[in-house]
Amino acid sequence: MSAPAGPRADEGRRAASIDVAFTAAEIRPARVAVVIDVLRATSTIVMALGAGYRRVLCTATPEEARGLREPGRLLAGERHCRPIEGFDYGNSPRAFDEARGEDLVLCTTNGTPAILSALSAAEEVLIGSLLNLEALVERIPTGEDVIIVCAGTGGRFALEDAYAAGRIVARLEGSWTDAARAAERLANSYGDTYEPLAQSADAAVLRETDQTADIEFCAQESISALVPKITPAGSQIAVASVGLDAEEARAGVGGVLEGEEAVNR
Amino acid sequence: MSAPAGPRADEGRRAASIDVAFTAAEIRPARVAVVIDVLRATSTIVMALGAGYRRVLCTATPEEARGLREPGRLLAGERHCRPIEGFDYGNSPRAFDEARGEDLVLCTTNGTPAILSALSAAEEVLIGSLLNLEALVERIPTGEDVIIVCAGTGGRFALEDAYAAGRIVARLEGSWTDAARAAERLANSYGDTYEPLAQSADAAVLRETDQTADIEFCAQESISALVPKITPAGSQIAVASVGLDAEEARAGVGGVLEGEEAVNR
Repeated sequence: MSAPAGPRADEGRRAASIDVAFTAAEIRPARVAVVIDVLRATSTIVMALGAGYRRVLCTATPEEARGLREPGRLLAGERHCRPIEGFDYGNSPRAFDEARGEDLVLCTTNGTPAILSALSAAEEVLIGSLLNLEALVERIPTGEDVIIVCAGTGGRFALEDAYAAGRIVARLEGSWTDAARAAERLANSYGDTYEPLAQSADAAVLRETDQTADIEFCAQESISALVPKITPAGSQIAVASVGLDAEEARAGVGGVLEGEEAVNR
Repeated sequence: MSAPAGPRADEGRRAASIDVAFTAAEIRPARVAVVIDVLRATSTIVMALGAGYRRVLCTATPEEARGLREPGRLLAGERHCRPIEGFDYGNSPRAFDEARGEDLVLCTTNGTPAILSALSAAEEVLIGSLLNLEALVERIPTGEDVIIVCAGTGGRFALEDAYAAGRIVARLEGSWTDAARAAERLANSYGDTYEPLAQSADAAVLRETDQTADIEFCAQESISALVPKITPAGSQIAVASVGLDAEEARAGVGGVLEGEEAVNR
């Protein structure tokens, strides 16, 4: 037989849609979602996995994070850029030069809720940042509908996330939505990665809270080859990991899993 | 007495906030809101008032528009860029070269709902488009918090509205939010007004529905000196007019006004 049209022939007839949600409210269904919270949650996830944590368990609230505490797990996070009482780390990616346990539990104001929202819109959810930009764009499958989800700030547009989204869009072939086109043009208007981060409202808060060094850190481009993938583990926990299958990613995460662990997705 | 600090001295100490809502979900309170639906509701309002209609009564639904029909009133509007059955006009600004009555009733998919939303967020609501750009920026008071509300499309980012918002932001002094800064950079990346309109998803729908001429029409810059102001007339009707005071603007609009007409705001 001469090579017949494969199972994707129909999909191939229209260009894949490349979309950007500047806020979580704009998330639309797609095959692949990339979640971005440059300052700082997704930058922190990339660095934590690079430091040796096997998994990052993402929760929407500090209470859920505390409920996951057990031996071998460290807690990290912030509320409005400030540390959370009783947690082992804040949300600075600079803190992760070595792993002090197997799992990191992470709870942040905008980033981890955006990750949980993305799970309801896409089959495959990846973690993006400037730190892993090159590896990320290599990893995004071609010919698939992609939505880049900006965490934003309190439901509002965040400049640094839109900039990173535009950098990714620029590398993806397909049919760009209006938002994708605008993000690409925005990114193209900057000559370096630092300026858009430094101009953002989130950077102003970091400066006010003596965490200025995080801005420059998160502006580093492609210093990591890791592309974390998200696996749901119960309705309110998302597991970020690299190289684990879904069963490994969600194994023994916590009580909410009972009854679901047996399901082999 | 030597000139004391006026009543605005406290406000003057911080820079006025210049903000952009790319979708109605991002609207935040401000002193002044400018609503933009370049393709095509706000362009149509500017042209209809220029043609001689005394008022444009904006409604969220076709049913509400029909309820306002009476002698001397014409109905205009669209649902997803197509005319509404029984209405006198579609939503093309090119249709308004002369007034065939005193009031125009307008109902559109995104524009008129955005106008109604803006009323709940700002004391003063103005209508913006490229057609009245120069007059609009002259009319926006300096030193006041301003939010530019993009109607968007079905809750999503619309390129042509973001472009026009950026053109306005570029002319306003104050503290630009992340969204305002991004809009300004986006607008600045285009060399003319036609390209951002023509590239938009809304333009694609106009081409599909044989209304291509509207794109070029709405891309005309500063051909009108009118800056329509919005006056609420009941909870679901917004009146666009020029040179009328609030009482004149809402006089005799419809039954929903009973009990409110006596209130002299």
